[in-house]
Amino acid sequence: MRREFKKVIEKIKTSRSFLITAHMNLEGDALGSELAMYLLLKKLKKKNVVIYNHDPVPESYKFLPYSRNIKTSLKGEKFDVAFVLDCSDSSRTGKVKDYLNNAGCIINIDHHISNTLFGDINWVEPNRISTCEILYWLCDRFHVMDKNIALCLYTGIFTDSGSFTYANTNANTHKIISQLMKYPIHPNHIYENLNSCCVLSDLKIMSKVFSLLELDANKKICWAKLQHWQEGQHDLTETVFNMMRLLKGVEVFILFKKVDKNKVRVSFRSRGKINVNRVAKFFGGGGHKNASGTTTEDTLSGAEKKIITFVKRYTDRLKK
Amino acid sequence: MRREFKKVIEKIKTSRSFLITAHMNLEGDALGSELAMYLLLKKLKKKNVVIYNHDPVPESYKFLPYSRNIKTSLKGEKFDVAFVLDCSDSSRTGKVKDYLNNAGCIINIDHHISNTLFGDINWVEPNRISTCEILYWLCDRFHVMDKNIALCLYTGIFTDSGSFTYANTNANTHKIISQLMKYPIHPNHIYENLNSCCVLSDLKIMSKVFSLLELDANKKICWAKLQHWQEGQHDLTETVFNMMRLLKGVEVFILFKKVDKNKVRVSFRSRGKINVNRVAKFFGGGGHKNASGTTTEDTLSGAEKKIITFVKRYTDRLKK
Repeated sequence: MRREFKKVIEKIKTSRSFLITAHMNLEGDALGSELAMYLLLKKLKKKNVVIYNHDPVPESYKFLPYSRNIKTSLKGEKFDVAFVLDCSDSSRTGKVKDYLNNAGCIINIDHHISNTLFGDINWVEPNRISTCEILYWLCDRFHVMDKNIALCLYTGIFTDSGSFTYANTNANTHKIISQLMKYPIHPNHIYENLNSCCVLSDLKIMSKVFSLLELDANKKICWAKLQHWQEGQHDLTETVFNMMRLLKGVEVFILFKKVDKNKVRVSFRSRGKINVNRVAKFFGGGGHKNASGTTTEDTLSGAEKKIITFVKRYTDRLKK
Repeated sequence: MRREFKKVIEKIKTSRSFLITAHMNLEGDALGSELAMYLLLKKLKKKNVVIYNHDPVPESYKFLPYSRNIKTSLKGEKFDVAFVLDCSDSSRTGKVKDYLNNAGCIINIDHHISNTLFGDINWVEPNRISTCEILYWLCDRFHVMDKNIALCLYTGIFTDSGSFTYANTNANTHKIISQLMKYPIHPNHIYENLNSCCVLSDLKIMSKVFSLLELDANKKICWAKLQHWQEGQHDLTETVFNMMRLLKGVEVFILFKKVDKNKVRVSFRSRGKINVNRVAKFFGGGGHKNASGTTTEDTLSGAEKKIITFVKRYTDRLKK
């Protein structure tokens, strides 16, 4: 990756205007990366730097510095460089994709193993826990680290490592965090901003989801079929999965959400060795090893039948 | 603390038999400290080293190495040194207290600000996030660190820092963790052992509790009245409170559990400045600032009426 690292540094030095984007359905690593890159470029006195996303910033991430500067509409501007961050495929940028080809150079910085290397420069490190961890080295190289950048990078690493509990969290993750925490970062505030963001009706929705949970005979797969998935003030998917993780011994967690008459959004989470990215890919989706998703044209029961059967076969095969 | 550190090192070097204990109601920092100290002494070829506690090791902590060696009964042995770890007062060791005075020297190593300095040597550092963080330096000094000690220390720091999210987590915490993770530690396994201990029926019980949640008009107090509180395979109280903490802005969390015809067990949790120990004390109970409880002779509605009224007045007064 040394060569890509150098190419990115060179491009930053020689370019004047920058578009920054990330994947749809923004979360901590996408937003943390975007804002860290934005602040890095601003510190290098670059004047034309724009963050433009398909989706608006979720309420719980509005504590991130300069998150108000993030745009969801843009006039026909052109940019020397388009940074696409934390995004395995350019189509995942949604409506921003149209702008990417106008840019002089697409720089793809990511940690997803499924990255399609769609950029002119592809700095992709699948062994990194988060894109923010990759950007840490860039900020370090340019000597721009400050409390705002540290807060953005911390948030990305914190969310993508599941509060430092996922399998890929390593000594290096904590070493970087110990460097970032030399700036005034308040982990309790970040935790509360990200986790204490439900209203009572959200918990009532979760109550309903819990009552619908099903288990396979081996108690390895847990799922729920949601006829009327009503989002509360924010997306409850991750919170529901966190609750499902309380279940001892369960290895795969699946939510089937009816999003249209014959359209089901399927979200997968897994523990340890189980690679749900493979499952999602088989059904035309993608993601990470332990977190992935797909959308399928089917009824809830139809989707359930085909996907649970597939996952059972897959997990059974692993045991042999 | 330099002087106490040296005294402890000297005592370890010159003594032959060691008792190790901690507070009742064992959790990660108590057990992690005990086992790290045990392994340190064993590596120094000390032959007579015994961990003896008031309570047995909880199921979820049995993954800790050598946890099977921990005793809950002891014949009239005498020891050169008794280490009391993570324990603010010697009475909190329960039945072990009787043994302490038989020891040649009591060494009190702790991080609680309320520590009563009951030892012959008191190595108390209230600015440390956990006792394991203190013991890290001792293990480092004796060059005994290995994967087992690292796992014990990691677990203590992990639990006492609330998975690195409590306010007192700092750069130093993460620096120590990055050192410990140079050994093969699997944060996902530790997390799962400690947190994934529900069965499906537990989640169904939680679903029921969520459906019963009530809020006061100011949305500062959240509670549930539980007619038939059926415990699952383990006590769900803490898990339910963790879920209630998802609620934004709520400061006090209360569970009313009918335990008998006219007997209600009331559990309180609070955030930040709100001292629910005062509330519990007023109703004849007790506990900590942010976690307390009481039992009252009343119906569910009777207990709810008097306690919610009291808590409302108390939180309103704080705002003035």
